[in-house]
Amino acid sequence: MDLNGERRYVITFSCPDRTGIVATISSFLAEAGGWITEAAYHTDSYTGWFFTRQVIPADSVAFEADELRARFAPVAEALSDQAEWQVTDTGETKRVVVLVTKEGHCLHELLGRASSGELPGQIVGVIGNNDALRGMVEAHGLPFSHVPFPGPAAAPDDRAAAFDEVAALVDKHQPHAVVLARFMQIVPARLCEAWAGRAINIHHSFLPSFVGARPYHQAHARGVKLIGATCHYVTADLDAGPIIEQDVIRIDHGDTINDMVRLGRDVEKLVLARGLRWHLEDRVLVQGNKTMVFR
Amino acid sequence: MDLNGERRYVITFSCPDRTGIVATISSFLAEAGGWITEAAYHTDSYTGWFFTRQVIPADSVAFEADELRARFAPVAEALSDQAEWQVTDTGETKRVVVLVTKEGHCLHELLGRASSGELPGQIVGVIGNNDALRGMVEAHGLPFSHVPFPGPAAAPDDRAAAFDEVAALVDKHQPHAVVLARFMQIVPARLCEAWAGRAINIHHSFLPSFVGARPYHQAHARGVKLIGATCHYVTADLDAGPIIEQDVIRIDHGDTINDMVRLGRDVEKLVLARGLRWHLEDRVLVQGNKTMVFR
Amino acid sequence: MDLNGERRYVITFSCPDRTGIVATISSFLAEAGGWITEAAYHTDSYTGWFFTRQVIPADSVAFEADELRARFAPVAEALSDQAEWQVTDTGETKRVVVLVTKEGHCLHELLGRASSGELPGQIVGVIGNNDALRGMVEAHGLPFSHVPFPGPAAAPDDRAAAFDEVAALVDKHQPHAVVLARFMQIVPARLCEAWAGRAINIHHSFLPSFVGARPYHQAHARGVKLIGATCHYVTADLDAGPIIEQDVIRIDHGDTINDMVRLGRDVEKLVLARGLRWHLEDRVLVQGNKTMVFR
Amino acid sequence: MDLNGERRYVITFSCPDRTGIVATISSFLAEAGGWITEAAYHTDSYTGWFFTRQVIPADSVAFEADELRARFAPVAEALSDQAEWQVTDTGETKRVVVLVTKEGHCLHELLGRASSGELPGQIVGVIGNNDALRGMVEAHGLPFSHVPFPGPAAAPDDRAAAFDEVAALVDKHQPHAVVLARFMQIVPARLCEAWAGRAINIHHSFLPSFVGARPYHQAHARGVKLIGATCHYVTADLDAGPIIEQDVIRIDHGDTINDMVRLGRDVEKLVLARGLRWHLEDRVLVQGNKTMVFR
Repeated sequence: MDLNGERRYVITFSCPDRTGIVATISSFLAEAGGWITEAAYHTDSYTGWFFTRQVIPADSVAFEADELRARFAPVAEALSDQAEWQVTDTGETKRVVVLVTKEGHCLHELLGRASSGELPGQIVGVIGNNDALRGMVEAHGLPFSHVPFPGPAAAPDDRAAAFDEVAALVDKHQPHAVVLARFMQIVPARLCEAWAGRAINIHHSFLPSFVGARPYHQAHARGVKLIGATCHYVTADLDAGPIIEQDVIRIDHGDTINDMVRLGRDVEKLVLARGLRWHLEDRVLVQGNKTMVFR
Repeated sequence: MDLNGERRYVITFSCPDRTGIVATISSFLAEAGGWITEAAYHTDSYTGWFFTRQVIPADSVAFEADELRARFAPVAEALSDQAEWQVTDTGETKRVVVLVTKEGHCLHELLGRASSGELPGQIVGVIGNNDALRGMVEAHGLPFSHVPFPGPAAAPDDRAAAFDEVAALVDKHQPHAVVLARFMQIVPARLCEAWAGRAINIHHSFLPSFVGARPYHQAHARGVKLIGATCHYVTADLDAGPIIEQDVIRIDHGDTINDMVRLGRDVEKLVLARGLRWHLEDRVLVQGNKTMVFR
Repeated sequence: MDLNGERRYVITFSCPDRTGIVATISSFLAEAGGWITEAAYHTDSYTGWFFTRQVIPADSVAFEADELRARFAPVAEALSDQAEWQVTDTGETKRVVVLVTKEGHCLHELLGRASSGELPGQIVGVIGNNDALRGMVEAHGLPFSHVPFPGPAAAPDDRAAAFDEVAALVDKHQPHAVVLARFMQIVPARLCEAWAGRAINIHHSFLPSFVGARPYHQAHARGVKLIGATCHYVTADLDAGPIIEQDVIRIDHGDTINDMVRLGRDVEKLVLARGLRWHLEDRVLVQGNKTMVFR
Repeated sequence: MDLNGERRYVITFSCPDRTGIVATISSFLAEAGGWITEAAYHTDSYTGWFFTRQVIPADSVAFEADELRARFAPVAEALSDQAEWQVTDTGETKRVVVLVTKEGHCLHELLGRASSGELPGQIVGVIGNNDALRGMVEAHGLPFSHVPFPGPAAAPDDRAAAFDEVAALVDKHQPHAVVLARFMQIVPARLCEAWAGRAINIHHSFLPSFVGARPYHQAHARGVKLIGATCHYVTADLDAGPIIEQDVIRIDHGDTINDMVRLGRDVEKLVLARGLRWHLEDRVLVQGNKTMVFR
């Protein structure tokens, strides 16, 4: 699905910086007839790496995405044997799976964007470890799967079995994004690894403040004057993955924890929606524990 | 100095909540002829305490501040033997002492506000553990004192002696506020106690993230998307005192640590200026590790 | 519906300012046993009017709302024969009617809040001058009415007839709020009057900039660096009624009009949701063309 | 003055868009050995023009700025005979002249940044149509010139004569920026033209709202919930020139016009400082009545 009615190829590329990378890539594209409509560059002065994202209309070149990849591969290789790159075709719809528990505001936000054609992708399934949000999902004509999870006192094997079931449901879609939309379970390391760079969480605090459970309670106890939310890639370190987007909202002494929960929802859902959008549009490049977001 | 040309009495009061406090206080003021021009209330549902700040024009009552205090004392006592209250007179100029090291942006901000008559108080002295900012201070016709501090490897006694000298310079002013305007020394516990409720620090991060030294380096390492500043009362726990004000500014992957330092300055100086203003206007009530700010 | 499980009475009151109003009202409440849990005051120094909003738990007084009104009436009358006041009972659910056309983001936002129990009221009906949003409404189990409107070239009588039909559908609910959630018709003066103080519009610009049609196009033409949205009461003057809430979002030169439309939606829906919430909680007092919002 | 200790060449270029511009420019730079450390691109889909800003370390090429210009000229010409471009050398300090009246907060802000080495340029003179700010300027060791202006009832010739004197004082510096830092005189059309693209004004409203005199009074009368400031290039149309930067701050019903003036100052001075910085760093490209800001 392409929202502006125009199919595009999106090239992202990174390698250790050196003179002439921009010239090489842009000359390659120019020779292919590619008309660059968006281009962003970044050189990280700490790591010495160069990053770029470039967009061309698909019909500005005379061949398909696979051919573009085939032609670009030796160019990238010549620039650096450490080069990392990909070419995506906006004509291929990105698939999104959403994991939820009981709180519906993030899911509702994503469903609303999907139904108004604003999400640069398609929600192909929602999986809940609680059945509460089934109705909301099915009202949008989307499949909902309920995978019951054992309680906190359960044997590790039981929890692992539940995650196996979730993983099977997720992986059959080969999704471009696995969104933890207030999914109240800690994802095991093996799934963090399997979904690396694709699993996106929304944490309800301005990380690194208030890692872990009940961040609004922690924020209330500390007496902060702003609360926030953080959208980040999921890694095996809890709430410590690369941050994609953050935002905050002002509170004051009159706000109870319940007020903070309510006010925080508005930040959570927008931060998640923005982060997911940038991920699906291939605007987010990751190096180590950091992201570059080419908006 | 009263900025609106009108002298006012500011009453702040707190005690365990019960029915009739507002009626009692407002009836007391009405009987005295006091015309309430500002009033704010807060009941903390967690501690069960009630807090209020009320303002009356001085000329709306027929007597002076001392008489108002004398009359109010039995009213407060009758409401609760735990009541905490004060009456301040905006006709009495608040005195401010500023402690600095080498970075001048926070000091420059305060001096600019003072010179344009915007600060609800008077800067009576600036003390530096470095002589770098003497010129800026003296250009505003204010006294600057340089108290050299020993290096990090010095004996504790030498540091204590330097702080004794600072304390002597501060205390001779009996200041209403001791502002640590990027003062790069950890204030010893005995001074935290002596200046409790009056010493105000600006920390260059969105606390509780990035406590301690070099917060922008910490923020860069974590890859956050917003950086912030926190104005708080100084306590013996480093960067853990009651927060008065916080704010943030957006950064992106293109910003180096130097950029973050530069961008952060704008947040630091505004957050400090707002927090100090509210403190000097008796808008900040403290309970435990939290503040109520009656703006 | 009371969201915190506690029924409350909300008293709003205004009159020309004089000494002793707070004392009179709070003494009245204290004598009735009323425990004030929220209180806000404002004196407008330009008009000389005093405004207050106070909240007491219903069970802190020994009688019902009607009795509270009956007892308060002579108190208010004695304070001023110009006094304007009301007592609302949060035990009475507020009714909301929503008017829409084709754009669904504001409606979707309100439906989401309603379904998660966050709206301090109940959506009792949605009326569209287009049928496009019927499915979204009915999926939430709510009634949708389609009232076709004539095109721009239609005779005034035809438009008036359509509005008569809308008015009939609205008025049968006796709603506390009539929300124009991107309703693309100019409400006639007679309905503005009939719904005065209850009709709430969301305008997709930071008023008073860009009144009227296609504000994002106007904003793009002017090259502004922030776009905004304004929630206001509807009056016969187009986009000129009392403003309840506004907010903005940053854009840059890379954003097309379509981008601005998309980014603006997030501001529109949150600004509308906040404004409606405050209206339904009786936090918004109006005088002339201005609002006081007692948050 | 180069703040990071590294001299750089900044190339800005624009022309009607076509395939291969990026390739041409980056190949030219690569052949010269130029190592691109910053690069930004924009294609305006409305006008069909392409814009870029690129930065290379001066020592990455083997020749000086003039030689770079001489070599680039035919490249630019070949791309388009409508091409507009320049190469600036950060080794050449930008000169800034500031015009003021009586309000000092914007001037104080710029002086503070200059004295801490943060301004990417040098304030070479301050001209006041009032003598009030002379002391502040001279305390920073900078020259202040007082040019008295006739009152509102004066003959046009008298005003013109005063502006002639201002122009003479300004033009002798051949400044890169003429900053109207709350300069309360309307600049005549002939000077707007002479200083086109160099004269920068700070207007104390969120334009296009509240053009002209006393915008805070206008904002108060309209009852807006946010106030703002706008930094823009000066043109003969009052407050209608290309906008460089804008920002806002929240107010509420309790804020008087004086409060708005005070709160607004913080926005004005930061918006001006950001806009001026971007201008001096050649980050602002203008087309028609709009700016592109390559941050």
